[in-house]
This record gives sequence, structure tokens and C-alpha cells, in this order.
Amino acid sequence: MAVELETGLPSVHQFQSLIREKQAIELKLITNDVVIGTLRWQDPHCLCIDSNEGQTLILWRHAIAYLKLL
Amino acid sequence: MAVELETGLPSVHQFQSLIREKQAIELKLITNDVVIGTLRWQDPHCLCIDSNEGQTLILWRHAIAYLKLL
Amino acid sequence: MAVELETGLPSVHQFQSLIREKQAIELKLITNDVVIGTLRWQDPHCLCIDSNEGQTLILWRHAIAYLKLL
Amino acid sequence: MAVELETGLPSVHQFQSLIREKQAIELKLITNDVVIGTLRWQDPHCLCIDSNEGQTLILWRHAIAYLKLL
Amino acid sequence: MAVELETGLPSVHQFQSLIREKQAIELKLITNDVVIGTLRWQDPHCLCIDSNEGQTLILWRHAIAYLKLL
Amino acid sequence: MAVELETGLPSVHQFQSLIREKQAIELKLITNDVVIGTLRWQDPHCLCIDSNEGQTLILWRHAIAYLKLL
Repeated sequence: MAVELETGLPSVHQFQSLIREKQAIELKLITNDVVIGTLRWQDPHCLCIDSNEGQTLILWRHAIAYLKLL
Repeated sequence: MAVELETGLPSVHQFQSLIREKQAIELKLITNDVVIGTLRWQDPHCLCIDSNEGQTLILWRHAIAYLKLL
Repeated sequence: MAVELETGLPSVHQFQSLIREKQAIELKLITNDVVIGTLRWQDPHCLCIDSNEGQTLILWRHAIAYLKLL
Repeated sequence: MAVELETGLPSVHQFQSLIREKQAIELKLITNDVVIGTLRWQDPHCLCIDSNEGQTLILWRHAIAYLKLL
Repeated sequence: MAVELETGLPSVHQFQSLIREKQAIELKLITNDVVIGTLRWQDPHCLCIDSNEGQTLILWRHAIAYLKLL
Repeated sequence: MAVELETGLPSVHQFQSLIREKQAIELKLITNDVVIGTLRWQDPHCLCIDSNEGQTLILWRHAIAYLKLL
């Protein structure tokens, strides 16, 4: 049974607008890494970030502690 | 199959009243970060906090250890 | 599909009696925090504790390592 | 839909015999705590241990790294 | 009910092309280990990596924080 | 609904051959423990290892970061 992106949820909905508006965000990971950049895409397992250091990172949702709007 | 917010559960129900009453809370994350603020919204995956430092944080439930009523 | 409290399980059943008897317990969290108090309520995601420091804490089950009977 | 103990699985089956035989075991938790004792009961979420220090501990399975037969 | 690889998801789709193109990647684990190499195969639970040190590693997805394209 | 071992998956299939061939492996846990030995059995929750120190360890899959072929 495929896992689908629940676009009706506030969190998923907010990330869709962050993708559209290319808004800068900060992500704190459970490893204590901090990633700053913009959101390229999201799916039920991962978020893809274009980091402000010019790298492409695919983050697993389970490893993210929080997302901060900058 | 969409995950829904189970409003019948004591925890979800308590968070709804924290949102309504804008009560100050402290959240301890599994990264040992501590966030103080008020709850703006909740969904099955995340809690959105207006922090007392004037920031908007979207916290993943899986990264929260506990919520303390202040 | 709502997640229900499985009252038939030994762990859930034991916590129900801890709530009734207001028995003192110690909870060790995966953050290495230790919380001492009595159990007020439980649901499939969280345990609510009245701590011996007079605070109300809502702990996520996923962040608890063990419960010790005092 | 209640979660049931899958007695057909080797791990669950082995724990049943550890309970019957009161065999001494060592449990390493993801907090790096080490608990030594015998297994009293198991359910889909937790293991109950009578520790060799005379305490009763209810351990969440999600917090256990491994079980070692002593 | 078998868990299947959801090839329609952006993350799974991206990993398929990384496998085809043998593109160098860096994986940061929640243990803070860093693994550099190429992706050999993926399934719903694991990623198999040929590391640049000539070793074969099977990584559990739950232990990966992020994947960085090199 | 019993969780079954998905023998069609590459990871599960590879572990079956490691069991048959008694191949030496190294397992890195999320506690940073490292276990070296051979795989005795697997089920959907756990892997049983005969360690090279002559001990029997039952590892929870959720606590394993990676498996390295030696």
C-alpha cells in the first residue's frame, strides 16, 4: 500500500509553500547537524534541500528534529 | 490511507486546549534542545511553535521527548 | 484508523493500575533525563506524569527507555 | 487493530523460553544503560525485567539495542 | 502485507538513477559515521553501498540522516 | 496481522545467504557498539549473532546502523 504525501496536513501544506516561495529555512537534525537552504521537493520519507553551500542534500524526515523559518 | 489527528486521545485533546489558551510550554527534544513558546497548530507528524524568541519552529513529534506545562 | 489503547497488554494494564494506585515511579528517557512522579493518564502516544517537583509533564512513549517501580 | 505478540517469530519464541527458564540475561539499551536480570513477561511494546538489584523494570523494546544470554 | 519499494516517490526514483549512474555519494549516519561510495541496490529497509574503501556495507534507512550528492 | 519476513527483499535475501554460508560480518549499532560474528537467524524484528567472543546476542534491527561484509 503506497505511502502518499498527505497534502491536507498543515506541515505538508507549509512545506509546499516553502518550495514554491524558495524561502530560506534552517533544519536541525538529530545528529545535531544544522542545514540552511531552500526546499526543492518533499515526499513521505525525505526532504530535498539546496543548501546555502551549493550542495544537494536528501534528508530523511526521521532524522529531522525541527525546521525553522528564517 | 491518510493519517488523521486523533482528537479523542488525551494528548491530542490537551494540545488543542494549549493552542486555544496560548499557554506557555517547554519542549525538550531528543537532541537536548529546549524550546519555550506557545503551540500554534498540531498535525499527526508535527507541532508548530511560536517560540519566545519570536521564531516559528515546526517540530517533528518523533524528536520530542516531553512537553512541560509552564 | 484510530490507534487505541490496548488494555489487554500487560504493559498497558500495569500502567492502568499505577494510575489507580498513584504509585511512585521513575522514568528514564532516551535523552538520559530521569523523571520521578506518579502517572496521571496514558494514551497510545504519551504518558502524563505529575512529577515530584510539582510539574505536569507529557512524555512521548518513543522517548522513554524504561519505567522503574519505586 | 490490536497488536499481538507474534509467538511464531524466533525472537518472541526465544524470549518465552527465557521467561520459563528464568535464564539470566543482559540488556544493552540505546541510552547505554546495561540491565542484568531475568525476564518476567513480554508484550509487543515492552519487556518486564526482574533486575539482579531486586528492582522491577519495564523496558520499551524501541529502547533496547541487544539482549545477551548469560 | 509485503512492503514494496515505492518507485513513484522522488527519493526512491533519485536513488534508482544514482544506482544506474554509479554517482559518488556521501551518507551521514545518526551515529555520526560518514560513508562515501556508490549505491549498489536499495530496498524498503536498506541501502547497499560499495564504499570508496572497497567494502560492502548494508545501511539501514532508519540509521541514515542524509545523503549528499558529490 | 503478523509481520512476515519479506524473503523477496535484497537485504533479507542477503542475510539468508550470510546465515547459510556462516560468513563473518561486522555490525555497527546506533549505540556505537561494534559486534563481529556470524548470523544464526533473522526475523522481522531481530538478528541473532554468534559473536566471535563466543556469546549469543539478539540484536534489534532498529538499533543497527549497518552491516559490513568481512
